[in-house]
Amino acid sequence: MSVTAAKGFEAAGVTAGLKSSGGLDFALVVNRGPLANAAAVFTSNRSKANPIIWSQQAIADGTASAIVLNSGGANCFTGAQGFQVTHSTAEAVAFALGISSGDVLVCSTGLIGDQLPLDKVLAGVELAAAALGDHGEEASLAIMTTDSKPKRSIKQGNGYTVGGMAKGAGMLAPGLATMLVVITTDVVLSSAELDIALRHATRVSFDRLDSDGCMSTNDQVSLLASGASGVEPELDAFTQVLTAVCVDLAEQLQGDAEGASHDIRIEVVGAATEDDAVEVGRSVARNNLFKAAVFGNDPNWGRVLAAIGTTDAAFDPYDVDVSMNGVRVCHAGAPDRPRTDVDLSPRRVDLTIDLKSGEHTATILTNDLTHDYVHENSAYSS
Amino acid sequence: MSVTAAKGFEAAGVTAGLKSSGGLDFALVVNRGPLANAAAVFTSNRSKANPIIWSQQAIADGTASAIVLNSGGANCFTGAQGFQVTHSTAEAVAFALGISSGDVLVCSTGLIGDQLPLDKVLAGVELAAAALGDHGEEASLAIMTTDSKPKRSIKQGNGYTVGGMAKGAGMLAPGLATMLVVITTDVVLSSAELDIALRHATRVSFDRLDSDGCMSTNDQVSLLASGASGVEPELDAFTQVLTAVCVDLAEQLQGDAEGASHDIRIEVVGAATEDDAVEVGRSVARNNLFKAAVFGNDPNWGRVLAAIGTTDAAFDPYDVDVSMNGVRVCHAGAPDRPRTDVDLSPRRVDLTIDLKSGEHTATILTNDLTHDYVHENSAYSS
Repeated sequence: MSVTAAKGFEAAGVTAGLKSSGGLDFALVVNRGPLANAAAVFTSNRSKANPIIWSQQAIADGTASAIVLNSGGANCFTGAQGFQVTHSTAEAVAFALGISSGDVLVCSTGLIGDQLPLDKVLAGVELAAAALGDHGEEASLAIMTTDSKPKRSIKQGNGYTVGGMAKGAGMLAPGLATMLVVITTDVVLSSAELDIALRHATRVSFDRLDSDGCMSTNDQVSLLASGASGVEPELDAFTQVLTAVCVDLAEQLQGDAEGASHDIRIEVVGAATEDDAVEVGRSVARNNLFKAAVFGNDPNWGRVLAAIGTTDAAFDPYDVDVSMNGVRVCHAGAPDRPRTDVDLSPRRVDLTIDLKSGEHTATILTNDLTHDYVHENSAYSS
Repeated sequence: MSVTAAKGFEAAGVTAGLKSSGGLDFALVVNRGPLANAAAVFTSNRSKANPIIWSQQAIADGTASAIVLNSGGANCFTGAQGFQVTHSTAEAVAFALGISSGDVLVCSTGLIGDQLPLDKVLAGVELAAAALGDHGEEASLAIMTTDSKPKRSIKQGNGYTVGGMAKGAGMLAPGLATMLVVITTDVVLSSAELDIALRHATRVSFDRLDSDGCMSTNDQVSLLASGASGVEPELDAFTQVLTAVCVDLAEQLQGDAEGASHDIRIEVVGAATEDDAVEVGRSVARNNLFKAAVFGNDPNWGRVLAAIGTTDAAFDPYDVDVSMNGVRVCHAGAPDRPRTDVDLSPRRVDLTIDLKSGEHTATILTNDLTHDYVHENSAYSS
């Protein structure tokens, strides 16, 4: 289901031969209407892949009727030839569906710097267009790269549905982490309203997932609305449902991050501002020494304080509390309960940092730094 | 030799029993004058260890006659008791040498959050004071933690000497990387002149070493001048010699970084400003995906471009060249020579990034991300 759970959508996942493994690698999601309202958010990386450059133009008018996605190649830093492949892909989809190429979003994921073979991509478009139907499951499988499992989520609103799929396992970092996400819904909302809802939802979900601090060139989260339910919800209510889908998908991405053996939930409380809370959480999420310690089940809270000391957030290092899995190991910047009281053997780790400087909070999701992370990422392109 | 190469200095390295290994763990460096001019730079981490808080006060008047250093404990986030240990250490050194405690700098390195045993520290002071002599070598051994070898450097100026020792193997990052460095010289220069020279030298050496992106709570680089040579050099000439010592020590720190199998030299050229060059180099030095690829001898230049795209530096991602070990793998943001032409099997890796936006350059030193890095840092405190 996922992207085909909401009324008005069809999808397909097929094999175009882009992946050396020979698995599903090409997906198509089509909005049959009656509306074609859409919104999308993109990587903030200045090094943008060709499909990002294309899709940013295509979504500018707030409408999109189809999204075509491939794994097996990022089509990034592939020169004029690479952009032509993206352009031709959109045109082939438009031709097959009888729509404008300007209403086709394109997403790619895989290795940077390799050309996508145009013949295989065009064959993939034909195959996918012919296979369209209630195939959200196949579509979610076709966008996987190093993902070990597909990520799907469905939530019901009052008379409407929001469903989504996501891929992403490495290069997961904020300002949109390396991920491709497609969310569909059958509500009646304008493109401007969808944009507001999507920006809120991503801000507190995907933008707070920082698995390895590395920001991708290809990230894209798209939201398509068909209007097929006939329901026009309050924007706040819709945003809540959409946010629930995004949080669910973000947690699935965290749980499947490359090589991770712990899912770390960093809750920053007592911050003067939400931005402070995010900055502090992020600094810990990016601290390799802390992350390696968690891998070793070592509650090394000194590395937490060393990390947050690099931020500009408002706090006094000698008035900070740190708890790990409910055990307060640091109180007011000094040792509290012994490290040995902390059991880090479960996969889930809860780290709480109390800055004692205000009422704001934020939660950042990250993972530990493991042998398997190094292994997977030292052998990705070879 | 190292810190005892310049005239007017004595040193000692002894065993105070702070390290569980039972090795040398306590060092003392004494300036016998006639001058006691000094300068120091400290970690910019807001989470500062007790010895940093002490030493910043002690150096404020531009004079210091002794530096006492211990491994086996960082004395950081150890509360009022921890600060008292630092204070007592300085007073014990002052008593033993017949100087003011305000002229004693204190440095500590080791695990954060554990108390240093005062009795052992005070015994160490007595032992070290009694062992003072031409023992720069023992001192450089006593400050090692996970270092596999001591770091020492000596350079001759025109009639004067600059010598130094350093420790640091993990938590190596900028804005002073996790390191303790003591440099001695017998020139006749004022504290203000020493400060200018030291800030220049560290800016282009230790501040451009970013092994793992983690900034320590205990970093300190101190420069003591005895005036015993009677030579008053031009400040520029002295700064050159001092910089050579700092660069030499920084490269030794890089070469001994925890678990590293490659020393990566990131040269950014064609930058609009030196700050841009540093920012771009730093973004690559902190990209775990790129660093893991180098560990796997994989010339994955796409990860270089993904990293620099996160910066605010002036450049066009589609006009950037990237070379690895002399092979230009990316030209104007598109693939150039094949990855297979690049041999990353030697320990030394030269990465050159041409931003084509100006005339400025900077070189950042870093290391790869390895299984051994993860292993060493997952088992440090346990």
